[in-house]
Amino acid sequence: MQLEKCWDQGWLRYHLVQDQERLKEYNQLFTQIVLMKEGSAAGLVDESSILSSAVKELEQGIKQMVGTKPSIDAEVKLDGFIWLATFEQIEAALSDERMASRATELQNPVPEQDIRVSMDEIEALKKRQKSTDGYVLESFLFRGKKGLLLLANSESGLLYAAFHLLRLVQMEQSLDGLKIVESPKNQLRMLNHWDNMDGSIERGYAGQSIFFERNRFVADKGRIKDYARLLSSVGINAITINNVNVHAVETKLITSEYLAEVGQVASIFRRYGVQLFLSINYASPIQLGDLDTADPLDERVKLWWKEKIKEVYDVIPDFGGVLVKADSEHRPGPFTYNRTHADGANMLAEALRPYGGIVLWRCFVYNCMQDWRDRRTDRARAAYDHFQPLDGQFADNVVLQIKNGPMDFQVREPVSPLFGSMPNTNQILEFQITQEYTGQQKHVCYLLPQWKEILGFDTYAKGKGTLVQDIMSGDTYGYRYSGITAVANVGADSNWTGHTLAQANLYGYGRLIWNTTLSSETIADEWIRLTLTADKYAVQLIKQMLLDSWSIYEQYTSPLGVGWMVNPEHHYGPNVDGYEYSVWGTYHYADHQGVGVNRTKKNGTGYTEQYHTENAQLFEALGSCPDELLLFFHHVSYTHVLHSGKTVIQHIYDTHFEGAECAHQLLVQWLTLEDKIEPVIFEHVKGRLIEQSEHAKEWCDRINSYFYRKSGIADTQNRLIY
Amino acid sequence: MQLEKCWDQGWLRYHLVQDQERLKEYNQLFTQIVLMKEGSAAGLVDESSILSSAVKELEQGIKQMVGTKPSIDAEVKLDGFIWLATFEQIEAALSDERMASRATELQNPVPEQDIRVSMDEIEALKKRQKSTDGYVLESFLFRGKKGLLLLANSESGLLYAAFHLLRLVQMEQSLDGLKIVESPKNQLRMLNHWDNMDGSIERGYAGQSIFFERNRFVADKGRIKDYARLLSSVGINAITINNVNVHAVETKLITSEYLAEVGQVASIFRRYGVQLFLSINYASPIQLGDLDTADPLDERVKLWWKEKIKEVYDVIPDFGGVLVKADSEHRPGPFTYNRTHADGANMLAEALRPYGGIVLWRCFVYNCMQDWRDRRTDRARAAYDHFQPLDGQFADNVVLQIKNGPMDFQVREPVSPLFGSMPNTNQILEFQITQEYTGQQKHVCYLLPQWKEILGFDTYAKGKGTLVQDIMSGDTYGYRYSGITAVANVGADSNWTGHTLAQANLYGYGRLIWNTTLSSETIADEWIRLTLTADKYAVQLIKQMLLDSWSIYEQYTSPLGVGWMVNPEHHYGPNVDGYEYSVWGTYHYADHQGVGVNRTKKNGTGYTEQYHTENAQLFEALGSCPDELLLFFHHVSYTHVLHSGKTVIQHIYDTHFEGAECAHQLLVQWLTLEDKIEPVIFEHVKGRLIEQSEHAKEWCDRINSYFYRKSGIADTQNRLIY
Repeated sequence: MQLEKCWDQGWLRYHLVQDQERLKEYNQLFTQIVLMKEGSAAGLVDESSILSSAVKELEQGIKQMVGTKPSIDAEVKLDGFIWLATFEQIEAALSDERMASRATELQNPVPEQDIRVSMDEIEALKKRQKSTDGYVLESFLFRGKKGLLLLANSESGLLYAAFHLLRLVQMEQSLDGLKIVESPKNQLRMLNHWDNMDGSIERGYAGQSIFFERNRFVADKGRIKDYARLLSSVGINAITINNVNVHAVETKLITSEYLAEVGQVASIFRRYGVQLFLSINYASPIQLGDLDTADPLDERVKLWWKEKIKEVYDVIPDFGGVLVKADSEHRPGPFTYNRTHADGANMLAEALRPYGGIVLWRCFVYNCMQDWRDRRTDRARAAYDHFQPLDGQFADNVVLQIKNGPMDFQVREPVSPLFGSMPNTNQILEFQITQEYTGQQKHVCYLLPQWKEILGFDTYAKGKGTLVQDIMSGDTYGYRYSGITAVANVGADSNWTGHTLAQANLYGYGRLIWNTTLSSETIADEWIRLTLTADKYAVQLIKQMLLDSWSIYEQYTSPLGVGWMVNPEHHYGPNVDGYEYSVWGTYHYADHQGVGVNRTKKNGTGYTEQYHTENAQLFEALGSCPDELLLFFHHVSYTHVLHSGKTVIQHIYDTHFEGAECAHQLLVQWLTLEDKIEPVIFEHVKGRLIEQSEHAKEWCDRINSYFYRKSGIADTQNRLIY
Repeated sequence: MQLEKCWDQGWLRYHLVQDQERLKEYNQLFTQIVLMKEGSAAGLVDESSILSSAVKELEQGIKQMVGTKPSIDAEVKLDGFIWLATFEQIEAALSDERMASRATELQNPVPEQDIRVSMDEIEALKKRQKSTDGYVLESFLFRGKKGLLLLANSESGLLYAAFHLLRLVQMEQSLDGLKIVESPKNQLRMLNHWDNMDGSIERGYAGQSIFFERNRFVADKGRIKDYARLLSSVGINAITINNVNVHAVETKLITSEYLAEVGQVASIFRRYGVQLFLSINYASPIQLGDLDTADPLDERVKLWWKEKIKEVYDVIPDFGGVLVKADSEHRPGPFTYNRTHADGANMLAEALRPYGGIVLWRCFVYNCMQDWRDRRTDRARAAYDHFQPLDGQFADNVVLQIKNGPMDFQVREPVSPLFGSMPNTNQILEFQITQEYTGQQKHVCYLLPQWKEILGFDTYAKGKGTLVQDIMSGDTYGYRYSGITAVANVGADSNWTGHTLAQANLYGYGRLIWNTTLSSETIADEWIRLTLTADKYAVQLIKQMLLDSWSIYEQYTSPLGVGWMVNPEHHYGPNVDGYEYSVWGTYHYADHQGVGVNRTKKNGTGYTEQYHTENAQLFEALGSCPDELLLFFHHVSYTHVLHSGKTVIQHIYDTHFEGAECAHQLLVQWLTLEDKIEPVIFEHVKGRLIEQSEHAKEWCDRINSYFYRKSGIADTQNRLIY
């Protein structure tokens, strides 16, 4: 799966439409692509524009799926047109006297087949700040010709509309009486790559970097373009391409040595509506400059950054801004100079302000040299303790980037209490698509259900119903900048994500943060049909496999929300005490009587207090704390009875045996698909599922043996424990 | 401590003699060096000969320690001669009429100051096969002149005698009435380097390789020469310079690409009586040749090796032979072709036979992909199970190389049952000087007491009193080749061994295997006085620190012989379950009730049966099994009472608290030496002892916490356990 230049197109596999009825419909519908250039009739588009990408995608998709080549014109001439227009263009058209009749039509109801966009909708979309990326996709009657109108505030919106249309065709859906109005839930829809310039990827499980090799950019950037297409097709609009741990070489990305090529990559993404950001090294003024300090309040440092940022914008006028991991896991930061994170971030923000750039400042700050003997220090508290008191002190072009949970992307954690606790500070939520702690793309673990739980979590920050998703969208507090980002799971493997089924997480991430009301099931259904097969049995089976997979993974790994129990450093595979006596603040405190971390206000670390009252009480009380988070919040005896009615120890045994068995069943299920999936994909996924099945058994046996040896309590079902 | 070309001379620090009386004595004694060239009077010696090294060492040592330069002559002229002669030469001299009076003297008693070697002693020494390296060092009266006679069978013996004399001078001992007769206990006195050609050293804790860098030999070989001097000064006579894990580049050491430079290194060692061997890759015929097999019974393979070995001897006529790690930890070997280890080793032996070369064939063969759930497979059994049945099948120039214990150089293991179980197969014992499992030269751990216990172990192989040291010396079974080897602890650090006190292990290793009757204390005393100080208080204190250190290390690490409990891969620092659920066959099976491995015949793995009856019974019975090996042989409850009267759990707590405290006391003791030790060494050792003290506390707390959490049994002294 690692042959160079031999990669698949992910979910953009434009196969010829199979249903002949549908093919006929599409054939009639896609005769003409209509473009209006700044309200004029000039049909040609700038090759480097996003609109050009939209047109090319439509042309390519229609050619491959329908087998035809629509004409490109400046006006509607035929039945079966696809009209791409911005609101400005359509308004100009409407104000044009030639559009008078159309204006009249818009005021009056029309028959079903003549459904068209209403001016009210246009106005509503237009006014909504975030909806520059929104679009309308609608069956449209114009001058007696029937066609499709793709209408948006911006060229990006038109590109998204084009991909939406192509998706419908891929799934062979009827386009009759179409009326779709889309507006993204989130303003920033971002991906973070943890790619190093030597070509390695921190926490990457899909081969080497698609951006870098041997401390240079890759020479052939064809794959970057295809990646931009994939991202755009699911609505991603921002990206960082280098690791948040910015090492020596990567520090120089903002210097003349590399900037020109950074600019080339930015151009590739620009054409697909994806804005480029860079991770930067906070100590750059020392490492790149002649300064002996990176103190954010030092005038020389401020000046250095201003000049540096200007240098970047000279090359990349639409540069998005910088992502900063400061004072975290041995990275440099303002603490060195006795400055606050606000001091640190604001200094950079000031340098970026003239160009509209922003600072994404990570809140993953904690003591990574903790003494395991010290039970008062609680890593879970750290982000809140560090940042919440600074609410209101950050510049308005600083965005705090907060991991979904207080620890580090475990299979199960509570939601970070920072969400909803900083009304006066822009926030962006960070997910992890790359499966660092969730099977490293050797195990299938469809993460959408996890993300939906997190986004749907009620923080009670402004009373009942203050959901995380509404805070991140900016709705709750009216953040100037906000949204969602995630660590990418992509590498140079031909299938992009190591495990082909892990593509569903990348696809689903984009779809979900665009529209948080989409269900995990809908997204899975889409991805499978776009990518693997249209066969009903197969779609249903694979969908169920995906939907079950997170829960299965949770079952056979660390129990009841306590997390970790993995091998140190690489984080793959079971090791119950792997992080128990370490410096990382990641403990389960299992002894012969019980297990779990007491984070209560009453007699624990007090972490529960970081939540708003309703949640604080929920987690504080043993009686109300959800089973799945019990050991995250409480240290209980093995004989403690869960809400499920089982004891903790029996729950551990049961879930592990069941989880391992379910993992095996995933393989059994997949084997029934042999004649329904392309052989190369079938065999590849089969191989991964065999490994998962065996490895799940290893997890099960090690976790169960550990707790049996420690507790001495027998399994009520007398299954084999070692 | 890593500055290039700025290394110390270890124990060959020839300081000016401080005692003025003694200086005067030496001044008078060292006026003339007398050499007889093949019985003739020609005084000049071949620059490349070992004798030349002996003369140079004497000259250099006398110059530095006494400040004089003796003349070099072909005959005795002055009082104060040092006469270097082989037995052949002295016999020729005696048969010479000019020696007639001397001959008469030899038949008759002489006054005390005229002590001289007796012909009986000469004859006895000469006849003993292994004593080519033996020597006599004696005050001597010749033609009325007083001097010292250094008499040996070979030039190597003379070099050893010279170093012996210099050692006496270094320690400022009187040479009056000297009479020393030395003969090494072991024939092969060897060191194995695990150096890789990229410059790294597997299990090296003293910097990079002194032999290799960047896949070449080091350009400046000055340090190799100094290393040869150090080895020769303690009697080492054989060496392998490359890792037993022979990777791609090192495989080519036996090709024209590297052979010339191997030859250069061999020449450096040759001048100091050290014979060069190489570790080879068993798959060489495939990797270097055009063959598709390495099957030892394949005629093409036999021929390939014959030609290859000839090629080596063409360059290095006194090449020692090859060391082979085959079918071990994923290394290739005869098992691939369904051949036995005897087949594999004998094929190589045949190729080496014409040149007098030998095959050192390692017995470190076990299943390193074991399932931790499988309690029947026992790694401890593996070497014996693989090799003992082959006794008598190996060629007489094959030597089986056997680690001291059945596992892998743990701080405490029983002695390998292979010693004494293969009367018809040459054996060499392998120690590990490099402190892989004994503190990695960050902790002080003087290993002589451990080695002496092992060498003094009674195997009962030929009845009571069949000690390991007599088997290895060849005395018990009359092996054609035998002796002792060890993994070196040396690297490019300026002090050779990372921790300066770890030099004592290298020094002591050489001294001990030359003369196994030397006590650990005597050896420590020598090394300290040669290397650090002659101050009585300091010598006494450091000696006690060294003598206590192994026991201290054992106290705060894994208890009662069970071993392991270290971090995987690098093996530094505590991790009780680090190897518990692994593939390596290294388990302790601790649960809430007890701990240990049942290796009994009765209901365990049956490992005890591999010993001769007396030991089998000793280890089999709980009542007689020594406390320090209890958990190696038995799984017992935490409340089991030891011979010491303590329960197992209380023993664990007590030894760990005590061990950590003792480690701290080592630091406290060292601090009293500030004005008695060279500042650079004082500070260096102080730094290491600080780290050891802190790390010992970490060991103590982790081990105790683990067992407290697992057993739930409180410390009777209520000390702090986490």
